[in-house]
Amino acid sequence: MINIGIVGYGNLAKGVECAIRQNPDMALKAVFTRRDPTKVQIQTPDVPVVSVEEAELWKDRIDVMILCAGSATDLPEMTPEFARSFHVIDSFDTHANIPAHYQAVDAAASQSGHIAVISVGWDPGLFSVNRLYASAILPQGQDYTFWGKGVSQGHSDAVRRLPGVLDCRQYTIPVPEAMDAVRSGAQPQLTTRQKHTRYCYVVAEEGADKAAIEQAIKTMPNYFADYDTTVEFITAEEMKRSHSGLPHGGSVIRSGITGWNGENRQTIEYKLTLDSNPQFTASVLVACARAAMRMAYRGVSGCRTIFDIAPADLSMLSREEMLAHML
Amino acid sequence: MINIGIVGYGNLAKGVECAIRQNPDMALKAVFTRRDPTKVQIQTPDVPVVSVEEAELWKDRIDVMILCAGSATDLPEMTPEFARSFHVIDSFDTHANIPAHYQAVDAAASQSGHIAVISVGWDPGLFSVNRLYASAILPQGQDYTFWGKGVSQGHSDAVRRLPGVLDCRQYTIPVPEAMDAVRSGAQPQLTTRQKHTRYCYVVAEEGADKAAIEQAIKTMPNYFADYDTTVEFITAEEMKRSHSGLPHGGSVIRSGITGWNGENRQTIEYKLTLDSNPQFTASVLVACARAAMRMAYRGVSGCRTIFDIAPADLSMLSREEMLAHML
Repeated sequence: MINIGIVGYGNLAKGVECAIRQNPDMALKAVFTRRDPTKVQIQTPDVPVVSVEEAELWKDRIDVMILCAGSATDLPEMTPEFARSFHVIDSFDTHANIPAHYQAVDAAASQSGHIAVISVGWDPGLFSVNRLYASAILPQGQDYTFWGKGVSQGHSDAVRRLPGVLDCRQYTIPVPEAMDAVRSGAQPQLTTRQKHTRYCYVVAEEGADKAAIEQAIKTMPNYFADYDTTVEFITAEEMKRSHSGLPHGGSVIRSGITGWNGENRQTIEYKLTLDSNPQFTASVLVACARAAMRMAYRGVSGCRTIFDIAPADLSMLSREEMLAHML
Repeated sequence: MINIGIVGYGNLAKGVECAIRQNPDMALKAVFTRRDPTKVQIQTPDVPVVSVEEAELWKDRIDVMILCAGSATDLPEMTPEFARSFHVIDSFDTHANIPAHYQAVDAAASQSGHIAVISVGWDPGLFSVNRLYASAILPQGQDYTFWGKGVSQGHSDAVRRLPGVLDCRQYTIPVPEAMDAVRSGAQPQLTTRQKHTRYCYVVAEEGADKAAIEQAIKTMPNYFADYDTTVEFITAEEMKRSHSGLPHGGSVIRSGITGWNGENRQTIEYKLTLDSNPQFTASVLVACARAAMRMAYRGVSGCRTIFDIAPADLSMLSREEMLAHML
C-alpha cells in the first residue's frame, strides 16, 4: 500500500483524490492546506484535513506527497522544501523555468535522499515523453504540438482581469487544415497564427463597452495578438450552463523520414481528448507516485522527470501480466 | 560510438542499415548472413558481410547485435544463442509465445551477463508501451487496437500459397465507424468483423478458377473467415506499379473515465502512419540498441522489454537538452 498526502485542495488536488480511489494499491492519508483546515471539506470519508504547517509531523505516515499548487510562485518554493522530508510529485509547467526548478529540487532531494518527480501531467508530461520517444525513433523529422480544443485557464484569467469583464472562458482551437498538412507528412513551416485560433466567451458588466473589451482582447500581447481571435458575449447563465467544464487535449505529432535516401514518410501522433483537464493531469501524477515509490525502494534519489521512469514502474501489473497481456 | 552488427539481410535488416546512418553515435560493423557472404551485397560502403558461423569471432568488435530474423522458427533459437556472447535486440512478435521466449532469453543473457531487449518494434513495441502508459493512467477503461490501413505480410503469404495464385497483397483496413465510436468514449463492445475489413489484390495464373480462389480466401479459417473480405484480381504489372510498398500503421486507443462518480471521459490515442513498416520497425530496434548499451554500462543484464527502458535512454540528447527542449 502506498500512502499518499495531497498538498492543496483545488481542482488538481480534487482530481488526485478521485484518482487515488481508482488505484487499489494506494491510500489517501491526509490533505494539507494553507487555509483553515476546519473550513476545507474533502470527499474521502475519514481522511483528515491538516494545516500545511504540520506536514512535517506526518513524515513517517506518508510515502509520497503530491503537490497541487501553482507553478508561478508556489512550486518553486514548495517542491524543494517538501523534498527535504518526503518523496514528492509536482506538475510544474512553466516550460522555460524547468531547468532552474530541476536544479533547485535536485539539490534538496539528493541531500535528503528522497526522490522528486517534477513536471508531471500531460504537457509537460505525456506530451514530453512522446516527443522524446518519437525523436529518438525518427531522428530526421520535425515535431508539432497542437493544443485543444480546450479551455486555457491562463488565457481565461487574462481576459477576466480586463475592466468591464465579469467572466471568461477561452478555448484554444487547433486549425484543422494545419493538422491535416502535418499528418500528411509534408512537414510544413507553420506560424503561430496558422496553428491555432482562440475563441472567447465573455460575460460583460451591464453597460460595459463591448467593442472596447473585444479590442482589448484581440490586441493583448503574448496572449492574443498573434492569433485570430473571436469574441462572443454571453450571459452568466449561458456561461454556467454551457462552459462549466474544463475540457482540453491536443496532439503531439512527429513527421519523419526513413530510408537510404529518406524516401519514406513516417508519422507518429499522440492525441488526448479530455473531458476534464485537471482530473487527467491528476491521474498522471498518481501513476508517477507509484513509480517514485518503486524507484525509491531501489535506492534512487534526487530529481527525476517522466523521461527517467521506466514505464513498467507506472503500472500495477506484475511482469508476468505485462508480458502476457500488454506486450 | 556504438558498434552494431546485423544478423540477416532481409527488409528489416536493410531498414536497420538505413536507421544506423541516421544516428551519428552508431556505426555498422558487419552484417552476418546464413547465405554465401560473397553473394550478399549491402548498401553501406566498406562494411563486411560475414558468415553467421563466424559471428563469435566478432565478440570484441560489436557492442550490440540486432537480430533480423523470423519469429516462427529463427528467433526462438537465435536470440538465446547470441545473448551468450552479445547484447542483443530482437523483434519477436508472436504475442502468445512472448512469455516462453522471455524465459529462454533471460536464462541465457543473465548467465552471460549480457542484456537482451526482446519484442521491439511497433506491435509489439510502441503499441505495447502505449497500452501500458494508458492503462496505468486510466485504470478504469478499455483498450482498443486498430491496425492499418496497411499490408499484412502473413495474410498476403497465406493467399499466395493457394493453388492458382501467383501473387497477393492483403490490406488490413480499420472500420471508420468503429474507430469513431471508440474515439467518442462510448466504450463499445466490438466483434472482430466490426473492427477491420480485409482487401486482397490477387494476381492469378492464366486460366485459374477465380471464383474458386475468391471462395478459398473468404472462407480461410483464422485469416479471413471472421472478416468481411474483398478480393480484386489485378495484373502482375498493376501489382508492381501500385502495391510494391509495405505501408502500415494503426492506432492504440484507451478510453477511460475519471471523477468521483466516473463522470468524465478521457481518451488517449497513439497513432502510426507508416510508408514503410520494416524501416519504421528497424528505427525502433536501433533506438533500443542505444538504450541497451546504456543499461549494460550501468550493470543491467538479463532479458528486458520496452517496458523496462527509461525513455531518456533511447535518446541521443543530453539531460540538459531534454529538460530545455523536450519537457
